[in-house]
Amino acid sequence: MPLSNREEEELVRVGPGTASGDVFRRYWLPVQAAANLGGGRAGFSGANNPLRIRILGEDLVLFRDGSGKPGLVAEHCSHRGTSLFYGRVEDQGIRCLYHGWAYDRDGSCIDTPGEPPDSNFKLTVKHPAYPCLEVGGLIFAYMGPTDKKPLFPKYHQLFEQEGVRVAGNGGYVEQCNVFQALHDNNLDPWHGEIAHGWYRGRPPAVTMHHGRNGDPATPIKFERTPWGTRMVVLKSTAKPGKYWYHETHTVWPAQRCNFEGARSMKWAVPVDDYRTRWFTVDFYPLEDGEPPEEALRAANSRFNIGHVENLPIDWAQQVGSWWNLGHPWRQGNLWEDEVAQQTQGSPERHFLPDWEQWHLASTDRGLALNREVWRDQIERVRQGLDPIGVVRDATDDKPIRITSDDVRDLSWDEGMRLFNMSVEERLGMVLASVR
Amino acid sequence: MPLSNREEEELVRVGPGTASGDVFRRYWLPVQAAANLGGGRAGFSGANNPLRIRILGEDLVLFRDGSGKPGLVAEHCSHRGTSLFYGRVEDQGIRCLYHGWAYDRDGSCIDTPGEPPDSNFKLTVKHPAYPCLEVGGLIFAYMGPTDKKPLFPKYHQLFEQEGVRVAGNGGYVEQCNVFQALHDNNLDPWHGEIAHGWYRGRPPAVTMHHGRNGDPATPIKFERTPWGTRMVVLKSTAKPGKYWYHETHTVWPAQRCNFEGARSMKWAVPVDDYRTRWFTVDFYPLEDGEPPEEALRAANSRFNIGHVENLPIDWAQQVGSWWNLGHPWRQGNLWEDEVAQQTQGSPERHFLPDWEQWHLASTDRGLALNREVWRDQIERVRQGLDPIGVVRDATDDKPIRITSDDVRDLSWDEGMRLFNMSVEERLGMVLASVR
Amino acid sequence: MPLSNREEEELVRVGPGTASGDVFRRYWLPVQAAANLGGGRAGFSGANNPLRIRILGEDLVLFRDGSGKPGLVAEHCSHRGTSLFYGRVEDQGIRCLYHGWAYDRDGSCIDTPGEPPDSNFKLTVKHPAYPCLEVGGLIFAYMGPTDKKPLFPKYHQLFEQEGVRVAGNGGYVEQCNVFQALHDNNLDPWHGEIAHGWYRGRPPAVTMHHGRNGDPATPIKFERTPWGTRMVVLKSTAKPGKYWYHETHTVWPAQRCNFEGARSMKWAVPVDDYRTRWFTVDFYPLEDGEPPEEALRAANSRFNIGHVENLPIDWAQQVGSWWNLGHPWRQGNLWEDEVAQQTQGSPERHFLPDWEQWHLASTDRGLALNREVWRDQIERVRQGLDPIGVVRDATDDKPIRITSDDVRDLSWDEGMRLFNMSVEERLGMVLASVR
Repeated sequence: MPLSNREEEELVRVGPGTASGDVFRRYWLPVQAAANLGGGRAGFSGANNPLRIRILGEDLVLFRDGSGKPGLVAEHCSHRGTSLFYGRVEDQGIRCLYHGWAYDRDGSCIDTPGEPPDSNFKLTVKHPAYPCLEVGGLIFAYMGPTDKKPLFPKYHQLFEQEGVRVAGNGGYVEQCNVFQALHDNNLDPWHGEIAHGWYRGRPPAVTMHHGRNGDPATPIKFERTPWGTRMVVLKSTAKPGKYWYHETHTVWPAQRCNFEGARSMKWAVPVDDYRTRWFTVDFYPLEDGEPPEEALRAANSRFNIGHVENLPIDWAQQVGSWWNLGHPWRQGNLWEDEVAQQTQGSPERHFLPDWEQWHLASTDRGLALNREVWRDQIERVRQGLDPIGVVRDATDDKPIRITSDDVRDLSWDEGMRLFNMSVEERLGMVLASVR
Repeated sequence: MPLSNREEEELVRVGPGTASGDVFRRYWLPVQAAANLGGGRAGFSGANNPLRIRILGEDLVLFRDGSGKPGLVAEHCSHRGTSLFYGRVEDQGIRCLYHGWAYDRDGSCIDTPGEPPDSNFKLTVKHPAYPCLEVGGLIFAYMGPTDKKPLFPKYHQLFEQEGVRVAGNGGYVEQCNVFQALHDNNLDPWHGEIAHGWYRGRPPAVTMHHGRNGDPATPIKFERTPWGTRMVVLKSTAKPGKYWYHETHTVWPAQRCNFEGARSMKWAVPVDDYRTRWFTVDFYPLEDGEPPEEALRAANSRFNIGHVENLPIDWAQQVGSWWNLGHPWRQGNLWEDEVAQQTQGSPERHFLPDWEQWHLASTDRGLALNREVWRDQIERVRQGLDPIGVVRDATDDKPIRITSDDVRDLSWDEGMRLFNMSVEERLGMVLASVR
Repeated sequence: MPLSNREEEELVRVGPGTASGDVFRRYWLPVQAAANLGGGRAGFSGANNPLRIRILGEDLVLFRDGSGKPGLVAEHCSHRGTSLFYGRVEDQGIRCLYHGWAYDRDGSCIDTPGEPPDSNFKLTVKHPAYPCLEVGGLIFAYMGPTDKKPLFPKYHQLFEQEGVRVAGNGGYVEQCNVFQALHDNNLDPWHGEIAHGWYRGRPPAVTMHHGRNGDPATPIKFERTPWGTRMVVLKSTAKPGKYWYHETHTVWPAQRCNFEGARSMKWAVPVDDYRTRWFTVDFYPLEDGEPPEEALRAANSRFNIGHVENLPIDWAQQVGSWWNLGHPWRQGNLWEDEVAQQTQGSPERHFLPDWEQWHLASTDRGLALNREVWRDQIERVRQGLDPIGVVRDATDDKPIRITSDDVRDLSWDEGMRLFNMSVEERLGMVLASVR
C-alpha cells in the first residue's frame, strides 16, 4: 500500500474549506480546559480572560462574560482587525481596545461608541463566533455550519456522577498533525511492545510475540465500530497461562478511548496542520463508596502537563537526542510517542512526513483502517450526510458507553471469549454490567 | 466602502518600483538621528560609524567621513557584495574589508588597491548612494530619481532658533506598515477617546460625545490642506462651558504634525512593508526668554525611546496580553496605539491585515480621506508630476508653518469660530501671529 | 564578465539532482571528525552515537556499530519516517524507536520485530545508506551512484606516517555556500593583502604591490592542474631583496591545499545551499626525528574550533559590527574571511548574493578560473565521464602529492625560477625531493 504525498497532504490539512477540516467541523471539539479560563463576574476582565486559542488553523479568542458562560470569537475585530485578545471582557461581551466596538457571545455587535446613538450600523456587523458548552471540566465548541450542529455527545466520562472525574489542562501540544498524533498511533499494538517496552529497558516480546511456549502468535484484530474503530489484543503476561485482554477505541473525529472500563477519553484537537493539542477526561467510579487510590494520584499528579506555549515549530529537533534529559523544553513529556511522531516530518516539507518513502507492513493494519474510515467520513460530509458517531435525533440523545477495556489475569479461554465477541456482543455485555 | 486586499496590499508596499514606494522616493526622509551616528574626524572609524540602516525595504550603510558629513550607500559592495557595514570609514569615504574598494559619499569608487595604478577601472564603477542633509538633529536622505530631487522643506520645527529643539532618537520601531502606524491613525479622533481614554480607566465619552447637556454632538471635520490633510475637533472638557480646539495634520508623505502651535513634527518612515520607524522633532519657543518647563522635561525624558533592534517580526504576539507588564521586550512603548495597530495583521498574511474583513464606519472618514489623498499622489507621480507639498521653485523656498494646534478653555463661540475657519483663514491667522 | 543570477544560483545548489550536487556526489567527502563519533563496542548506544549529519542538503544519521565501523544512513526510518537519530545503535546496526525496525551499515533491513518470523517482508526494504571510510582522523562518505564510486584518493596528508597528523573537529561551519567559502576565495591573493593585512592594522601593500623600489608589479599566475587549479605568487617581504614564493591549490571538488610542503588539506563540504562545513588535516613531517614545535602547538590549540550547532541562518547579521568582540556567537572565528563571505548575501535572497550587482576586475581572475573549471566538471558528469582528479584505475592508486608550498627568503632569481615552472616541472621537483 504505497502512500501518495499529494493524497496524504490533502488528508492532514484541517483549515477552513479543507476536506478533513470539514469533517472536524461537524463535531463538538474541546478548545480549552475550563479551569484555565478566568472571568465570570460581571464587568470583570483580567488574568486569563480572554485567552487566545488556535484551533483547526483559526485564530480565536475565548472569553467568559458576566454570565459565566464562555464565548469563542474570531481574534481580529470586525472593525479594523485589532486583536480582541487585547480587548476587555465586560458583562455582556468583549470590547475592542481601538475604537471600543463590543461583541456578545453570539458575535452580535452590541456597541460602536463612535457611531451616533440613532445609528443602526452595528446591526450590519456580525462577528464570527462559535457556540460553546462547558462540560466535564472542558470547554467545547462547534465550528461547523449552523444547520448541521449536532447534539452534544454524552460520553460517560463527562457525565457520570458516582465517582471522581480528572480533567487534564490541555497543556500538552504535540508538534505533529493529528494523524501522526492519533490516527496512526492508536490502533498500533506493536509500538507498545517496542517503543514503550523495549526502549524502556524491557526485554523484547514480553506481551506480544509470534508464537512462544506453545502459544500461537498474539491474537490481534482491528474492526469498525459505531463510533469509529477498535483494536482488540489478547496479550501475554509474565505469568504463564495468564492473559491480558486489551481493547482500545478510536472515537471519531480524533479521540482515544482506553483503559479499564473505558475510564479515559482523550481528544486530539488540531491546532493547525502541524500541531495537535491533547485534552483528557478520566472518570474513576467509586470503589466501595470511596474514590480509588489511582484517581487521587491522578488528580494530584503532574500528568496534567503545564501549559507549553510559543515553542518553536522544530522544538523536538532542537531538544536533541533521546538521552538529552536536561533540556529545558523537555518538561517531562518527551516520551516515546512524541519522539516517534514528531520526527517523522522534515523542515523542508514544513514538518509533514515524506509518506512516499514509507513501507507499510502487516503491523500497520490499524493505521490503514483508520485512514479508510476517515476517507469514508470525507465522502459522507461531501454528500451532506452526518459523519460517524454524530448524535442528531433526540431519540439518540443518551449516555454513550464505549467498550474500551483492560482485563488482566484471564485464562486463554476467558480471553479468547472476549476477543471473539463482535462489537455488538461487547456493547451488550458492557451495558448489562453498568446498569 | 469594502476594501480589497489586492488594492490595499499594493498600497502598503514601499520597496523599489512599487507605486507607494515611488511616492515616498519623491520626498526627503529622515533616516537616522544625527546623535546616533559617530565619526567626523579624519581617518576615524569606530563606534557607531558606520551604521546599518533599512529604509523603504533597502539595506543601506550610513557613515560620516572626515568632513563630518553623512553618506548613505547601498550595503553590499559593488565588487563582490561584502557588507560595507563591516568596512572602515576613512577621511574620504568608506572602504570594503574584502579587497579594499573605497567609495565616497557620492558613491564614486575612489580606490581599488588590487588594480594597477594606471587602470581606469574604478571609473566604471558607480556605487548606489543617496544625497544626505543633516538638519535639526536628524539626518535626511533623498532616495528618488536625481532629476526629481526637491528643495529641502523648511518646517519651522527644524529651523526656528528662538527656543528649544528636542529631537527623538528614532529608536521607536512599530511592527506594522506606515499606513497602520500613521495614515489610518492620525485623523481618527474616536480612538483618542476610547483607546487613550476609556482603556486608561477614564469613563467613556468625556471629550467626545453624541450630544450631552444641551450641547450638540462633538463637531469634527476632515479636510485637504496644502500639505495633505487635517482633522479639526471641538472637544468638550470636564469644565462646563469650556471647549478644547484640536487641529492635527497629516503632512505628506507620512508626518504627523500636532500639539500647541504645531510644536511637534513626527515622521513615520517605512523600514519596509511591515515595520515603521518614528522620528520626531519638537520645537518649544521661549516663554519670557526662558525655555518652558515642558521642554526641559522632554529633553531629559525617556520619551526618547531606546534603540530597539532585532525584535522578531511577531514580537507583539510574543509579548502576550495587555496586562503582561513585565515582558522584557515591552520597554515602556507597548502603548495603546501599538497594540491596536500591530495586531491587525496575522502571521499567515505576513502581518498584513485582512482588510476584506474590515467594516468601516462613520468614524473612519479620516482614514478614507488619507487613502484618497495618497492615491492622488500615486497618480501624480505616475504622470511625472510632483506629489503634494514638494518644494521645487526657489520662490517657494521659505519657512513652512503648519497650522496644527491645541487651544483650551474656549467658549463655544470662540471654539466654533476657529472650527469654521477654512485652511486658508487659519494659515493667515497663524502666520500673522508668528510674525 | 557580468554574472547572471540565474546561472549562479544553478551553480551553487548542491541538493540531490542538481548539476553541482551531481559533481560533489562523484567524490569521497568528509562528513565528520572520527573523534566526534562515539560507539564501537558491541551493543553500545549512547553519547555521540548516533549523530545527526546534514551534507549536500540531505538529512542523515551517522553511527558506529559493534564492529567499530561507521555507517551513514537516511535520517527517516523506511517504515514510517521516525528519525533514526532517536534510534538505538546495536551490534549489527541501528534500530528505530517506534516499531524497532533495524538496519545495518549497508541499509539492509535486518529486523522487523512486529512481522511474523517467517515473513520475507524485510527483504523488500532497502534503506538509503552511503559507504563510509575512516581515514586520517576523518570519516568520509561517497554519496553518488554505486557504479561510479571511485577509489579513495591517497592524499599524503592523510596517509603519511613519519610525522604528526592534526585533524580538526569539523566544528567550523560558515553561513555561506561552498563557492563563497572556497572557490571564490582560494585563488584570490589580494584579499590576503587587504583583509588579512591592512584590516589587521598593517600598512597597505607590503607583500603585494604594483611596482616599488625598482621591482616590477608582484608576479601572480593562475593555472589549471591535474587536481584542479593553482595560484602562484612571488610576494615581496619586509626584507629588501628577499622574496616569498607562495603556491596554493584548489583540489576538486572543494579542497584548499596550502602551506609549506603542502602541509595542510582543508575540505569545504556543503551542508546545504547556504552553509559550508570545514574539515582539515595537517601533516607535519618530523624534523630531526622530532615533531616540529608548530605541530605540537596546533595539536593543542583552539584552531580546532568548538562544535557550533543550531546557529540561526542570519547569525553573522546578528553578531553585529566588526568591533562587537563580546558577542557570544562569535567564539573567536568571526575572522576576516567569514565576514567578507557571509555578508555577501541578503535575507531577501535567502542569503544568496545578488551576483548581477558584482563588478569583477583583474583581481578576480582566480575566481573566474575556478568557475570555468567547475563548469567543465558539470559538463563531464553530464556526459557520464569522471570529473577531474577522480582516481579509478588501480594503476593510479598511489600517494597524491599536491605541490602547494611557501618558500621564504628567496632572491628574485630563485623566486622567478619557481614561479616560471610549469605544473609538471613543479610536480617532478616535489616528487624528487620527497623520495
